[in-house]
Amino acid sequence: MAETGSAAATDFPLKRPRDDGEKEANNNNNGSVLMEMDSNKQPDCISSVIPGWFSEISPMWPGEAHSLKVEKILFQGKSDYQNVMVFQSSTYGKVLILDGVIQLTERDECAYQEMITHLPLCSIPNPKKVSKQFFPDVAVGFEDPRVTLHIGDGVAFLKAVPEGTYDAVIVDSSDPIGPAQELFEKPFFESVAKALRPGGVVSTQAESIWLHMHIIEDIVANCRQIFKGSVNYAWTTVPTYPSGVIGFMLCSTEGPPVDFKHPVNPIDADDSNCNSSKGPLKFYNSEIHTAAFCLPTFAKKVIESKNEKI
Amino acid sequence: MAETGSAAATDFPLKRPRDDGEKEANNNNNGSVLMEMDSNKQPDCISSVIPGWFSEISPMWPGEAHSLKVEKILFQGKSDYQNVMVFQSSTYGKVLILDGVIQLTERDECAYQEMITHLPLCSIPNPKKVSKQFFPDVAVGFEDPRVTLHIGDGVAFLKAVPEGTYDAVIVDSSDPIGPAQELFEKPFFESVAKALRPGGVVSTQAESIWLHMHIIEDIVANCRQIFKGSVNYAWTTVPTYPSGVIGFMLCSTEGPPVDFKHPVNPIDADDSNCNSSKGPLKFYNSEIHTAAFCLPTFAKKVIESKNEKI
Repeated sequence: MAETGSAAATDFPLKRPRDDGEKEANNNNNGSVLMEMDSNKQPDCISSVIPGWFSEISPMWPGEAHSLKVEKILFQGKSDYQNVMVFQSSTYGKVLILDGVIQLTERDECAYQEMITHLPLCSIPNPKKVSKQFFPDVAVGFEDPRVTLHIGDGVAFLKAVPEGTYDAVIVDSSDPIGPAQELFEKPFFESVAKALRPGGVVSTQAESIWLHMHIIEDIVANCRQIFKGSVNYAWTTVPTYPSGVIGFMLCSTEGPPVDFKHPVNPIDADDSNCNSSKGPLKFYNSEIHTAAFCLPTFAKKVIESKNEKI
Repeated sequence: MAETGSAAATDFPLKRPRDDGEKEANNNNNGSVLMEMDSNKQPDCISSVIPGWFSEISPMWPGEAHSLKVEKILFQGKSDYQNVMVFQSSTYGKVLILDGVIQLTERDECAYQEMITHLPLCSIPNPKKVSKQFFPDVAVGFEDPRVTLHIGDGVAFLKAVPEGTYDAVIVDSSDPIGPAQELFEKPFFESVAKALRPGGVVSTQAESIWLHMHIIEDIVANCRQIFKGSVNYAWTTVPTYPSGVIGFMLCSTEGPPVDFKHPVNPIDADDSNCNSSKGPLKFYNSEIHTAAFCLPTFAKKVIESKNEKI
């Protein structure tokens, strides 16, 4: 997936236009990771660093940074699409970074991975055909005999799929500014809707209510136009993501109605279902499923008013 | 409350024993805040800093740090009890720091303040007598004619209160290692239980499920022994607290039963109740109230097993 590089140059495709003077990342010899970037809006973000730590600084969340202590850098390189780094952290296990942004840590990945998959799959009776995209290679699920892995451009892949193929599509994307931008736009959602059977479901990463309500508003508006079954926003805690939370759009196509808030495949903490997979679930259960759709007032107002306008 | 200090020396009462070589904090002239501390367990945490930013580094959450960009330091000094700093941040409004730890920011305080108060007060029919402690002076509630403010030692205050005085006690404490330690111990919970009427309720800060399950286990065990009505753990998102979440113990004394999960005083986003106070609620509503009691599997297992053992 990625070529090996030593102290590779790293650019930050986090802003458009791309002519904004992005700089190199440097890896010094004591395990510290220096990340620098220019920004017309936040010039003071340049050269912000904790020696010996990875600091996640981005114009996507100006004025704040989460830092993890680095024990050892395990991989650093550049794929055809993104800059990739894996390091052993001091207290969060192994950490995967794409384009300078934390994608997962071993300590808290359970929250994100279990929620983005179980929220849709426990909401329909008998999910069989699911399109998994962009899952990191640390996921044990790839060893499951039910999985066929397609590596490639997810946007092109879904466009080429015959209409009504899938029960569920799960889009584990990075942030909308950069290479994953297309995954937040209307043509992609239209491909997803076409690829789904009637009453099929999609779960897609949909940013943080604390940081990106304006992005969420746009996603909700797009989804309301395209998914004629139901359109919902759910969220979960992920300590190492900016603001500590991340959200998902859960939508269904016209057909058998899907009540996302009340899962038809209940999984409880002490359920034997938990042990039928590679390991017991650490985070997800049916109560947390339903709770994920309850929104703070400030978010609820925006999302509901967006629904009404359409 | 606190004496004014310029570039005041700051110590960190975050660890016991206190003979571990705590160092000074330095305030340089460009608005950056350098915080250093020794720790026998995390020697590498020393000298971690982002220039121009406040970095929250503590042995309570080793290996990670949240940083906020500082625009201007508004106050820095030492009260009889704690080191106090207030700064204008770049994107989170004004920020209050006690002993090096973020207590509140204007941007996300609504989540914590609304939840720690409304979770107990919406769970009983007609709350009148409430003991408020340690609320920061930015709270507008102090201007409410229904409020009588007592400044002093909350532990001593509650001990002296006649039995059965209060409908509700809300304990907005800092972390259990340091000056707030007593507020997490059995004698204090016994004072609270004594001060409450039968079927009275307490809400107390109870740390993060991601970081401090062992502390939560102990608190739950203490509460199960002392509060004979019901004992519950609830949680909420607070982006600027370590791990992005914080929890509360919601307990009631023996008497009229209190079902914390289903509030008897419902408040909805578009409810006129929201506007009867100083400002509309930004975060709390009845749905988020109920959802707050739904726990991830890893936390649920620990808390429920603790309940069964007692």
